[in-house]
Amino acid sequence: DKTDRQGLRLGLLVLLCCLALCPAPVQGDKVLVMPVDGSHWLSMKLLVKELAARGHEIVVLVPNTSILIQGSDYYRTETFRVPYSKAQLDENVNKLKDAAFLKAPDVMDIFVNVQHLVHFTTMQVKGCEGLLYDEPLIQRLRGEIFQLMLTDPFLPCGSILADSFNIPAVYFSRGIPCGLDEKAAQCPTPPSYVPRLFSGNTDHMDFLGRVKNMLMYSLESYLCTVMFASFDELTSRYLEKDMTYRELLGHGAIWLLRYDYSFEYPKPRMPNMVNIGGINCGKRAPLPAEFVGESGEDGFVVFTLGSMISQMPEEKAKQFFDAFSRIPQRVVWRYTGVVPENAPDNIRLMKWLPQNDLLGHPKVKAFITHGGTHGIYEGICNSVPMVMLPLFGDQGDNVHRMAVRGVGEVLNLFDVTSDKLVEALNKVINDKSYKEKMLKLSAVHKDRPIEPLDLAVFWAEFVMRHGGAEHLRPAAHDLNWIQYHSLDVFTLLLIIVLIVVMVTIKCCKVCFRKCCGTKRTMKKKKSE
Amino acid sequence: DKTDRQGLRLGLLVLLCCLALCPAPVQGDKVLVMPVDGSHWLSMKLLVKELAARGHEIVVLVPNTSILIQGSDYYRTETFRVPYSKAQLDENVNKLKDAAFLKAPDVMDIFVNVQHLVHFTTMQVKGCEGLLYDEPLIQRLRGEIFQLMLTDPFLPCGSILADSFNIPAVYFSRGIPCGLDEKAAQCPTPPSYVPRLFSGNTDHMDFLGRVKNMLMYSLESYLCTVMFASFDELTSRYLEKDMTYRELLGHGAIWLLRYDYSFEYPKPRMPNMVNIGGINCGKRAPLPAEFVGESGEDGFVVFTLGSMISQMPEEKAKQFFDAFSRIPQRVVWRYTGVVPENAPDNIRLMKWLPQNDLLGHPKVKAFITHGGTHGIYEGICNSVPMVMLPLFGDQGDNVHRMAVRGVGEVLNLFDVTSDKLVEALNKVINDKSYKEKMLKLSAVHKDRPIEPLDLAVFWAEFVMRHGGAEHLRPAAHDLNWIQYHSLDVFTLLLIIVLIVVMVTIKCCKVCFRKCCGTKRTMKKKKSE
Repeated sequence: DKTDRQGLRLGLLVLLCCLALCPAPVQGDKVLVMPVDGSHWLSMKLLVKELAARGHEIVVLVPNTSILIQGSDYYRTETFRVPYSKAQLDENVNKLKDAAFLKAPDVMDIFVNVQHLVHFTTMQVKGCEGLLYDEPLIQRLRGEIFQLMLTDPFLPCGSILADSFNIPAVYFSRGIPCGLDEKAAQCPTPPSYVPRLFSGNTDHMDFLGRVKNMLMYSLESYLCTVMFASFDELTSRYLEKDMTYRELLGHGAIWLLRYDYSFEYPKPRMPNMVNIGGINCGKRAPLPAEFVGESGEDGFVVFTLGSMISQMPEEKAKQFFDAFSRIPQRVVWRYTGVVPENAPDNIRLMKWLPQNDLLGHPKVKAFITHGGTHGIYEGICNSVPMVMLPLFGDQGDNVHRMAVRGVGEVLNLFDVTSDKLVEALNKVINDKSYKEKMLKLSAVHKDRPIEPLDLAVFWAEFVMRHGGAEHLRPAAHDLNWIQYHSLDVFTLLLIIVLIVVMVTIKCCKVCFRKCCGTKRTMKKKKSE
Repeated sequence: DKTDRQGLRLGLLVLLCCLALCPAPVQGDKVLVMPVDGSHWLSMKLLVKELAARGHEIVVLVPNTSILIQGSDYYRTETFRVPYSKAQLDENVNKLKDAAFLKAPDVMDIFVNVQHLVHFTTMQVKGCEGLLYDEPLIQRLRGEIFQLMLTDPFLPCGSILADSFNIPAVYFSRGIPCGLDEKAAQCPTPPSYVPRLFSGNTDHMDFLGRVKNMLMYSLESYLCTVMFASFDELTSRYLEKDMTYRELLGHGAIWLLRYDYSFEYPKPRMPNMVNIGGINCGKRAPLPAEFVGESGEDGFVVFTLGSMISQMPEEKAKQFFDAFSRIPQRVVWRYTGVVPENAPDNIRLMKWLPQNDLLGHPKVKAFITHGGTHGIYEGICNSVPMVMLPLFGDQGDNVHRMAVRGVGEVLNLFDVTSDKLVEALNKVINDKSYKEKMLKLSAVHKDRPIEPLDLAVFWAEFVMRHGGAEHLRPAAHDLNWIQYHSLDVFTLLLIIVLIVVMVTIKCCKVCFRKCCGTKRTMKKKKSE
């Protein structure tokens, strides 16, 4: 009896110690979430769900016309009206897609990309205005008192609201076009070894590569002013202060970046940048055995072009059907387009793929992907060699990085043929070096002190606990461009050096003249 | 019976899953450790012990004349001969100490500091040679095949051996003078907001502050060439290749830096820099009640000038004894010098303090410290306001950072009096703002996703598991200074612009001349 009581007491003591030592989960805090539609939302949703599961009250702002953002038991939604229809949204996406299928890729793609992006963001900024100027909704939200704004900085709505509501912002992002994220966070990115998007460079560049990179860097800076003009305008109009979107972003507390060095090149980071690359391939659900489980020794291939595209021109699709009829593997393909009559038996067409679950299956042999970051991280995390067909945006750069590491082959959708497909598939499946390199990359990627989702949760809650992360904010934010680069200091030092040199020369001259003068006078005197 | 068996099977399954999912501790790997004597060793020892506890075989290289490095059950030691005696070592330390007590601090201290440092490192480099050219020992070590060199880059021995043995190096450091660590890691440190040592600046500088910082930056660059000349020479001589110490350091896999933003200013970091600031104040041992436990409501003060100094000139000591007799707090003081006859009762003199345990006691009211990083981190981690009396090296900068944050007061040992001491102590104890600010700082410091020691262990083992951390190595290492700053690219672009401008002007001239020429000819013709 006595031992029992002692045991009980000891147990209670241990429990108390645990309670005292473990950081208590912040409960009852309110988080406002402003997502970006499309694949961006898919990984952000993971964090939102986890925060909800930890007892935070979550409100997600959803446009009444949306592609992937939906309600859930985990969070409350607040819907706002946007001045565009689902058809207009789809048209936008189709334009992007068609460009990839129907046009050979060339150098000018950067302009086409920017044009598409401007078109897309202009539409979204209009949607954003729909939210910001919805007075009743904004008043209601303002009254709720949130502790945190979790937002995707790809669009300006979230950070504008955070500033207006005076709550700290945590960004969830893979990066913003033109490196605006790095500029806003005051993160140096030397163009001598940090390859710019669309430059076709890796981090190791020869002289011409570096010239190209520098030109791309300058071009980007120009394009950025075009691309973010509407963001800047909305920011200063709504907040009624003279502020660019970049400056506004600089006030964010933490950047949760879907970034990892198994995929990205090493470069400088800032203290408030947190790498959570691979957050989307945490847990896998078991798959029903049948089709993939019974795929025999040859295994199977997973094929998807991402969340936004499940169709392609009929002629193009035929090349794929033909190629798949010539390989021994089975194929699971996300496809809702026209199916030819003689479609081979080894293909299973699906409207939506459990991509990560499939890639985690032991019999998967290859992954045919458009090279979106989600797919790439899932490929790395499950060590699956890839055949990559980039569509638009950053995908060209993504697949280039993977190809350089020897874990996949790149084709392009414009001129892809069944022959090319079969060759690439056979290569990544049968040449063991692809799998071996992928296994190494995967090992490095997954060997981390803390899981990306836990890290993201930690920093979101940190910001709630401390009302921001002021101690991680670099003083560089208080300097202008000239001051940051010390150009004013150099100018002063240069002037001082010049003055010293001039005074010295003057003195020397005077001395010389006096000296010679004296000599001459002496000579004169002598000659007298 | 059946349920039992099912339960057992389930249990086994869970166990297997756990084993498969949890990263297995790397066991049986061999780690070679090259420490730096003095306080540097105190925190490195924590990591060494933890690695030993996790099953790694550790060999620590120990000079036969050492201050703090000793044998232990945790690790094997290999002793090497150094060409200096304990007395010579002590003399070195005393010189540093005497300068602080007997000389008013002034601008030229940087030169004195550098001189002392050069003196100290020259001695240590000689010791290093004692190790490197001890052929039998080196041969024996080479034969053992280590997976990792854990070294303090403050001295070159460890990294030279790592290169010679062809094993990856992990650095354990608080930073190297002149920012050589950052230079070696290719980490940008814009002098416009990253204050240089001895500049007296914070991260927020006005124009003159930035001018001073830039001058200090240039001065440092010069002093570095002096300070590390012997390192460079030894590196290229021993490794028989043309290599500076900075280049050699650039090959390290991971930098474990005793760095934390509760203490340091936010600035850019590189992917292979891991912050483990505060690693030294992990666990506290309970204290015997008596002296400090019975200190009543007034509590007590902890006073130590660090591991290297336990004495001071008698006159100086008198000021302290006098001051302590005038405060209601008890004082625990690490002091082995002369004790005056009328020494007050509230002082407990000790040869060695359990500093962190004392600072963690609920009754501690203030910490009198020389401002070494260990003490500062223990002060922050235990939220104890500080009275700081810097001695030498980085300590002046350390205490400045704390004073700026409003968590302590700075005095200097040269002109300290009992009045000044009493005033400072009363201020930090009775003015609640010091404690409040310290509590906030401490909260931010201790709120981290993973403990510094665990993080250090993780990265040391990561390097062992993967034979390095190649994926974190920036491509900047392959560029020279001109290439890194894109000066060659700028030159080419400038030349192109100049040529275009000149050709345009030439063309315009030719056109103009032709045009006018024609007109003139026409006029001529007309007039004919």
